[in-house]
Amino acid sequence: MTDAPDAPTGGAGAPARGMSRRALLGLGTGLTAGIAAGAAAGFGVGRGTAPTPAATSAIGASTYPFTGPHQAGIVTPAQDRLYLAAFDLTTDSREELVDLLRRWTTMAARLTQGLSAGPFGPASGPYDAPPDDTGEAADLPPAGLTITFGFGRSLFVGTPSPDGTPGTDRFGLADRLPGGLVELPHFPQDALDPARSDGDLVVQACADDPQVAVHAVRNLSRAAFGTATIRWTQLGYGRTSSTSTAQKTPRNLFGFKDGTANVKAEESAALDEHIWVPASDAAADTTDSAWLTGGSYLVARRIRMTIETWDRTSLREQEAVVGRTKGEGAPLSGGTEHTEPDLTATGGDGAPLVAVDSHVRLAHPTTNDGVRMLRRGYNFTDGNDSLGRLDAGLFFLAFVRDPRTHYVPMQTTLSRDDALMEYLQHTGSGLFAVPAGVPDGSLVLGDDGTPTTSDDSPFVGQALFA
Amino acid sequence: MTDAPDAPTGGAGAPARGMSRRALLGLGTGLTAGIAAGAAAGFGVGRGTAPTPAATSAIGASTYPFTGPHQAGIVTPAQDRLYLAAFDLTTDSREELVDLLRRWTTMAARLTQGLSAGPFGPASGPYDAPPDDTGEAADLPPAGLTITFGFGRSLFVGTPSPDGTPGTDRFGLADRLPGGLVELPHFPQDALDPARSDGDLVVQACADDPQVAVHAVRNLSRAAFGTATIRWTQLGYGRTSSTSTAQKTPRNLFGFKDGTANVKAEESAALDEHIWVPASDAAADTTDSAWLTGGSYLVARRIRMTIETWDRTSLREQEAVVGRTKGEGAPLSGGTEHTEPDLTATGGDGAPLVAVDSHVRLAHPTTNDGVRMLRRGYNFTDGNDSLGRLDAGLFFLAFVRDPRTHYVPMQTTLSRDDALMEYLQHTGSGLFAVPAGVPDGSLVLGDDGTPTTSDDSPFVGQALFA
Repeated sequence: MTDAPDAPTGGAGAPARGMSRRALLGLGTGLTAGIAAGAAAGFGVGRGTAPTPAATSAIGASTYPFTGPHQAGIVTPAQDRLYLAAFDLTTDSREELVDLLRRWTTMAARLTQGLSAGPFGPASGPYDAPPDDTGEAADLPPAGLTITFGFGRSLFVGTPSPDGTPGTDRFGLADRLPGGLVELPHFPQDALDPARSDGDLVVQACADDPQVAVHAVRNLSRAAFGTATIRWTQLGYGRTSSTSTAQKTPRNLFGFKDGTANVKAEESAALDEHIWVPASDAAADTTDSAWLTGGSYLVARRIRMTIETWDRTSLREQEAVVGRTKGEGAPLSGGTEHTEPDLTATGGDGAPLVAVDSHVRLAHPTTNDGVRMLRRGYNFTDGNDSLGRLDAGLFFLAFVRDPRTHYVPMQTTLSRDDALMEYLQHTGSGLFAVPAGVPDGSLVLGDDGTPTTSDDSPFVGQALFA
Repeated sequence: MTDAPDAPTGGAGAPARGMSRRALLGLGTGLTAGIAAGAAAGFGVGRGTAPTPAATSAIGASTYPFTGPHQAGIVTPAQDRLYLAAFDLTTDSREELVDLLRRWTTMAARLTQGLSAGPFGPASGPYDAPPDDTGEAADLPPAGLTITFGFGRSLFVGTPSPDGTPGTDRFGLADRLPGGLVELPHFPQDALDPARSDGDLVVQACADDPQVAVHAVRNLSRAAFGTATIRWTQLGYGRTSSTSTAQKTPRNLFGFKDGTANVKAEESAALDEHIWVPASDAAADTTDSAWLTGGSYLVARRIRMTIETWDRTSLREQEAVVGRTKGEGAPLSGGTEHTEPDLTATGGDGAPLVAVDSHVRLAHPTTNDGVRMLRRGYNFTDGNDSLGRLDAGLFFLAFVRDPRTHYVPMQTTLSRDDALMEYLQHTGSGLFAVPAGVPDGSLVLGDDGTPTTSDDSPFVGQALFA
């Protein structure tokens, strides 16, 4: 690159250079370090805690508060697109890990509020340095972006070798491993690819525009350079679960409505019972896991569907396997979508109308000791295999209070007995402890030209290191 | 599956079963075979030819006419999402090929107008047969779906062996190979993966909802079972080019505005000069290629960006390499985004302000004998490699009148001299002849319960077989 021009110094001939998402958002100027930018500019940060959009009318302009008792991106009404990345740490330094989480937290708060990851351009930074923001979301609205962080088991106890040698506690966190962060058992028919599984850290970015979600992960990944590296990622589209009663039940790639019985944001009691980790769970743990109080666990499973086989299956078979009608989504025992399935009802031949190996029956809370999950999975399509079959399916994401009670038993049953398993293959898996949120009013976001992360900025998961 | 219930026969206890995209679209009933359903129901099919949305207000509800002098999906205002699939034929039967194109044409017309691929459910088909539509788009609006078909060189002359043995003319089409459907040369730094390149047929599905685009390709693929199989696919998001003056210039994953000088739908003269194949081109060909008159050529290139390297490059270098400012997108010779770059302007040191190896200079029409393209590329993100680097970049799509004059010379220059090539790797490639459209008013779409493809239905590319 020998022909780079000098940096323009302004004047009549100088090209227009400025760029700011703030301009797009119609914000005032004058946000400076030391002032809670979010609050000053009317952002949600440091303000609301409700999982509802800020008062903006256009969908693309929606923002959700980053701070609050719980992290955003769990009960937040499921956005249309997902980009999830699992990271492995490349450092053994606890200090570097904390520093990364601190920088990630501020950056994530900025991005979710429609700010850039950091300043760029000659007006606000050195022209000979790389821009702090990669730029591809510069003209895009916030698109309801949420960013949710989680910790994998390997962060606490390292990764055991195939020969059984225990992993290394690189960060002095082994005695804080929460009880629910188990090694998931090998379920029948699991076909897990290690390159699509596990990880020290996870970042779930959800938005109504994939470019906004990808931009967020890319910039967080960039900020992790030298400290952590991407282990695997998953792009998802077409959310497959509603997390709010205001949302319609979407369809998965089998063409069926999915997640009708999902825990919804509006069900406070159910959230407390099934999703958030209560202090009493920590008290029952053998380790010091009080830091996870108010958090949750994220179960991620990449479930490939054998689309082509399914598509050649009769409607009768499809409905019998699922236990619901394809069109309306009504249980085969009768009624409409939201009618509770009657698992005791039988047909003229004496056989149950909702078959004993149907997915609806085996996944139903009454078949699973009453446990419920908050699912916010996405469809995925990752090209095709060498036989021309689509590599597509469901990227299952569920938040639960304890995977030992709320996921493992159900998945053991499903993987063994569910007729749907004939058309499914679990190809990736991750389990992560998701800490509580960063307190309202504690973050300083700064202007685009102002550094914002200080040595005492709060960060997601801070209690783990206290 | 021994526990499948009997097909419900109605009555109080029967589950709700019906499903129709027509209900969603608010259409009347009574469309029957023999009536031009599109026209009868106020659809665009058989009506308008302008590349403008039908008069629907909500974005998701937009439909574009399928029929017209040219195929839709070329000058149509670029939708936000892409799913493109290349197919290889598994038959040598010309009859089966024609039958496939006929069924694809009707199905594509139906899908683009918000209809299902075909009937399903007990009210409209045998319950013991697979549904004709896979269902996952049943509740979704048409989302501006367009489907565009093209023919690869191998359809005409087969695929030569690596040892140079010529391919086989399986369908008796060799003497109709259009002159522009060349084997693209190996460009410097090409790193093409055969599994991501070429193909007998191509289907480009664009929509504002990825689930609608994927649904379309999946159902077309399903209809091709036994006749053609998917060779490769590409999912794209975040269009990187505007094809209408009403659209803002979007940003690619380098964070720069892209395609500022693109041919737009509104430039009729430029479209005739640079995009549509005129009869005179056929006359100049050595083969009988008049069938392509009114069509175009589609160049597809999967261009991986070395995102991580780029992101560590200074803003000065990034702007010099591109030849524009990152924020505004103004040429470095001055002005704003739409100011023509002044390729002769020099700075204080006598060097050109727009560097001699900058992308803008080398891609500019004045550097390329005045040729222009209609680009409608998309960003892509296909996971990551084993080093944790994103497999992401630009899926370049361009429609041109003749690749020999409108693509090969420019790409030869770019791949040799463009400073941007340091950050690019071409990993996939395809070139396809895109026939003209199906005449307005010639298609019968039928109701959801009515078969629609007859032995004399018109189809895309019919002139090739005449």
